[in-house]
Amino acid sequence: MIHAVIMAGGVGTRFWPRSRRSRPKQFLRIGGDRPMIEETRRRLEGLVPPERTLVVTSASQVDLVREACPDLPEAGILAEPRGRNTAPCIALAALRVVGEDPDGLLLCLPADHVIRPAETFREAAAAVLARADEARSLLTFGIPPSFPSTGFGYIECGERAAGGEPPVHRVARFVEKPDRATAERYVAAGTFLWNSGMFAWRADVILEEMRRHLPEVVEALEGPAREAGPRPSPALAAAYDALPGISIDYGIMEKAARVEVVPAPFSWDDVGSWRALERVHDADEDGNVARGRLLALDAAGVIAVAEGDHTIAAIGVEDLIVIHTEDVTLVCPKDRAEDVKRLVDGLKESGDERLL
Amino acid sequence: MIHAVIMAGGVGTRFWPRSRRSRPKQFLRIGGDRPMIEETRRRLEGLVPPERTLVVTSASQVDLVREACPDLPEAGILAEPRGRNTAPCIALAALRVVGEDPDGLLLCLPADHVIRPAETFREAAAAVLARADEARSLLTFGIPPSFPSTGFGYIECGERAAGGEPPVHRVARFVEKPDRATAERYVAAGTFLWNSGMFAWRADVILEEMRRHLPEVVEALEGPAREAGPRPSPALAAAYDALPGISIDYGIMEKAARVEVVPAPFSWDDVGSWRALERVHDADEDGNVARGRLLALDAAGVIAVAEGDHTIAAIGVEDLIVIHTEDVTLVCPKDRAEDVKRLVDGLKESGDERLL
Repeated sequence: MIHAVIMAGGVGTRFWPRSRRSRPKQFLRIGGDRPMIEETRRRLEGLVPPERTLVVTSASQVDLVREACPDLPEAGILAEPRGRNTAPCIALAALRVVGEDPDGLLLCLPADHVIRPAETFREAAAAVLARADEARSLLTFGIPPSFPSTGFGYIECGERAAGGEPPVHRVARFVEKPDRATAERYVAAGTFLWNSGMFAWRADVILEEMRRHLPEVVEALEGPAREAGPRPSPALAAAYDALPGISIDYGIMEKAARVEVVPAPFSWDDVGSWRALERVHDADEDGNVARGRLLALDAAGVIAVAEGDHTIAAIGVEDLIVIHTEDVTLVCPKDRAEDVKRLVDGLKESGDERLL
Repeated sequence: MIHAVIMAGGVGTRFWPRSRRSRPKQFLRIGGDRPMIEETRRRLEGLVPPERTLVVTSASQVDLVREACPDLPEAGILAEPRGRNTAPCIALAALRVVGEDPDGLLLCLPADHVIRPAETFREAAAAVLARADEARSLLTFGIPPSFPSTGFGYIECGERAAGGEPPVHRVARFVEKPDRATAERYVAAGTFLWNSGMFAWRADVILEEMRRHLPEVVEALEGPAREAGPRPSPALAAAYDALPGISIDYGIMEKAARVEVVPAPFSWDDVGSWRALERVHDADEDGNVARGRLLALDAAGVIAVAEGDHTIAAIGVEDLIVIHTEDVTLVCPKDRAEDVKRLVDGLKESGDERLL
């Protein structure tokens, strides 16, 4: 049976001041009318029922998950005592599933991506899961690059591994975020895809690979995983304390033998910064994208977000991001959207907790 | 005796969204810690007592005046039934004063200018009033131009009319707001001053000039002025309805015979738009001026105003105005500060009353 693993641990600092420690990115209504995590869950409707959906999150976000995903059974929430990157998160979910469903298939998805249309996604996911089941391989969705991004890792496609649609390729190699010139070569080559962080595999297969490449992770979690749920046990807390933070990409995908990639046939956006809003929402005739009310006079290419009844008035500005929240308003040119993280890091360093 | 006439009728549209119909510019704390109108009144302390201070305002602003100027006697508030520019406003005040103090001197001041230091202003005002009394002339303060502004009218100084300090000159001519090239010539000439809109004269002398050049204004107001106070009488309302809007500059100053100008020995700013904040407040080392909390990262020349505890975070922007209020946030490059008026005019046209 198919089980969804929704990974919802981060804060999404680049969406400050909307994202806060108490209101991480996946709980914001960025891509649609619902919190991103709930959009992710609903996208699976018809493919995976709520009772086979696991949300792996931090203990501090459990209440937010309950609120954002009212259909999710309580047992579907797996709280991590602390963030240890994706490998322990996936190990925890795989151990939980394999105990109940030894042939279980896992579809591992970040909670904060925008994917459209949902039906194409479900069809592709079903096909990829079938392949993972049949070939006992580790599968990942790769995104055909739309521009030479330096913000993503890339996957080089090797030989075709299976017929049918979507095509399945062996992974020739994973490459870290490249510089601009390298990214341009990758895009020109036509054989590179962005690493989406969305995976499909059998629970027993990923655990097998983990026992080989990350044995300490499986050993540490095997016992406590049985009791995993919305309240982390002391045993799980102790296990996490002792674990290193390690990503599934670095820990497993780059090392395992049977790794395959499928080019995503759906549109995908990781909504990495405020800039993404102009990709996932419609603009007016001047290229302004507004969530909330925008009054524009000679303004173009503005991304404006206002909470509640608040109005943003923009005169004579271009390519500016304006984000209003109750206690902070951010202004930032679009091409500096990544630097929101720097500002938040500065707040952390200064010990200014109020706005974090 | 000296009487102050504080003219407080306008809205100050360029200070939107802080200035509203219900909270005009003169009631904002722009120049200092108190509402501008109260700063204007306090600047006179030692020269004119509250009981000889008149505030001429619109009926809708009477409560705001009471709140902003707690020391002002109730009889010092003269409400105009509607705005008719400065000539009727000054006529009303002059008629009121001359009835009680036939030799009364009037110091007529807009409520929304920033002037420093107060002591220099008081000394200069006293000297100018003495000259107005003695010479029975109409005096105005002219501001030595600090740049070739196209936003002010200019006064050309004629021959020196009196010795002493500050020097008194006959006015050679008043000129309307010039174009840039003309303004540059004026500044280069060294004999032109900005028209400040601050006047000094005997009440009987200005009324004499008004009887000559604007007889209909004096005739219409002579009766109702006796009852002028915080609540406009029906007779005053009827008189104002029938009056044309006319400025004291156009109606009297450009026509009267004995008009003199004194270069202001104090620093003066009419605080015409948000841009003025960088002239009347100190900037940080990057040239950012903040009223309220500003978090700046690679931001320079920003003018940021936040209400209450609100924080403005500015990343990588330059010469940008950011004004936060409870229901609207404005962003606008400094060199478009005048266009705030256009945006507000657009709101008026669209019948959108909520934000006016």
